[in-house]
Amino acid sequence: MTLDQSWFSEPVEATGSAFSLKGRKLHEEQTPYQKIEIWQTETFGYLMTIDGCTMVSTRDNFLYHEMMSHVVLNSHPSPQNVVIVGGGDCGTLSEVLKHPEVRSATQVEIDERVTRLAEQYFPELCTRNADPRATLFFGDGIQWMKDAEAGSIDIIIIDSTDPVGPAEGLFGKRFYLDCIKALKPDGLLVQQSESPLLHLDLICQMHAAMREAGFARTDLFHFPQVIYPSGWWSGSIASRRDTPPVQRLETRTISALDTRFYDADTHRAAFALPPYLRSALRSSAPDS
Amino acid sequence: MTLDQSWFSEPVEATGSAFSLKGRKLHEEQTPYQKIEIWQTETFGYLMTIDGCTMVSTRDNFLYHEMMSHVVLNSHPSPQNVVIVGGGDCGTLSEVLKHPEVRSATQVEIDERVTRLAEQYFPELCTRNADPRATLFFGDGIQWMKDAEAGSIDIIIIDSTDPVGPAEGLFGKRFYLDCIKALKPDGLLVQQSESPLLHLDLICQMHAAMREAGFARTDLFHFPQVIYPSGWWSGSIASRRDTPPVQRLETRTISALDTRFYDADTHRAAFALPPYLRSALRSSAPDS
Repeated sequence: MTLDQSWFSEPVEATGSAFSLKGRKLHEEQTPYQKIEIWQTETFGYLMTIDGCTMVSTRDNFLYHEMMSHVVLNSHPSPQNVVIVGGGDCGTLSEVLKHPEVRSATQVEIDERVTRLAEQYFPELCTRNADPRATLFFGDGIQWMKDAEAGSIDIIIIDSTDPVGPAEGLFGKRFYLDCIKALKPDGLLVQQSESPLLHLDLICQMHAAMREAGFARTDLFHFPQVIYPSGWWSGSIASRRDTPPVQRLETRTISALDTRFYDADTHRAAFALPPYLRSALRSSAPDS
Repeated sequence: MTLDQSWFSEPVEATGSAFSLKGRKLHEEQTPYQKIEIWQTETFGYLMTIDGCTMVSTRDNFLYHEMMSHVVLNSHPSPQNVVIVGGGDCGTLSEVLKHPEVRSATQVEIDERVTRLAEQYFPELCTRNADPRATLFFGDGIQWMKDAEAGSIDIIIIDSTDPVGPAEGLFGKRFYLDCIKALKPDGLLVQQSESPLLHLDLICQMHAAMREAGFARTDLFHFPQVIYPSGWWSGSIASRRDTPPVQRLETRTISALDTRFYDADTHRAAFALPPYLRSALRSSAPDS
């Protein structure tokens, strides 16, 4: 059957697949950076799309935001200074600020309109924006990272759109070099790394570029993310030190995060890589 | 944008979402039970649909078939006599027969045309159909289970379509009572149980019905399944005994299965339930 204008559809030409949500468009605007739309869907609440790609829905954003924040924060011994590149809907910032040990969380989003629309349509993601530890900076993340004080950051979270358009420069060796410089010696970077089924080559290229830039170690984790292509998504952690990320998974700490998907069990499970993924990463490693 | 006739789309009206694959229809037939279509997709190989729902694609069926077979077989101390209800594409049968301890595997599929089309378009799933341990029976699984010899089966795998149409009767207490009778005292049943996000109520109802029928224990596991609604799927194991399923996860045994998604790590990880799922199952348990 055909899907008409009463559906938002994100066809991924390169992968020949599409995900659609039924609803009606409430808002559309072209910013200096991209086209943003807001849809009222029938069953997923509000949906924000950027340049025709799903970004965030009311119903399922908890999966992505919890996994892009708590996994890496609980992989670091003491995450105090956190920087989010992208993440303009403020969902990741909101989760990061749940950690009492975080002293400073800076969100560097290139497009202020993403945040203003999130405040309007996803207020539940923006409840911590006035936290005294939070800074909302609107500008280019690549330039911001170049200018960052050396050795000042514990964790960099790259919560960007796909590696085309404004976000393309966030997926390469040159940017990773600036991240390494800005990180403390035990610093970690985490980046959303697309679908383990549809974008396997990209994942391997990212890990290779991270290692080439000087990260000593990379780890992949994966989780369901319903509105993104294939419904299956991944994050990649790059470590300056060549030691496995710690696992701070005390029950009391985890419970206090008040999460719906993330906990100690799903943290560990996310790193269980299927044989085909392990094998692909191994064969593309720079030292293989 | 709209998706035209060059896409197969499965809109799930109840959930307001749709998954689509670009391609062209090669074959369509109405059997006495359902409408079957075969598509040649651009990037997922062949696709079989039944009554407008995706069933199996060349590219991603390994996820479902490996998880619906090896998880339960390695949760049983000695799976010798296995019965598959549904599963006409023979993919589950093929995985079950990889286990050397299996002496007999019977596939009870209501619609012989599913199997004949699988032989034509998915021959890689049918390579073990001539195994002397395999029986392909075409008939009604509900009646078959009623007639099964009491206490004769180690594992029942319910690999059916959604709980509407021909498969509806496979999701209820009456059918589970017949399964319990047919199972040995340490027997296990596993059933595909839809999407953990979109069909949470159904999952809870299934577990409640399994317990009401007399299963002592139910366990949920989950895994990515790209072409099914939400890209995230689940299986439910019902145990006659009230003891946690065993985990036969020796490296040598697992390696011999020659799998792409399944191994000891992904087996364990599949049982890591997010807090919202644990909580939903707990609050719907008959003894809660």
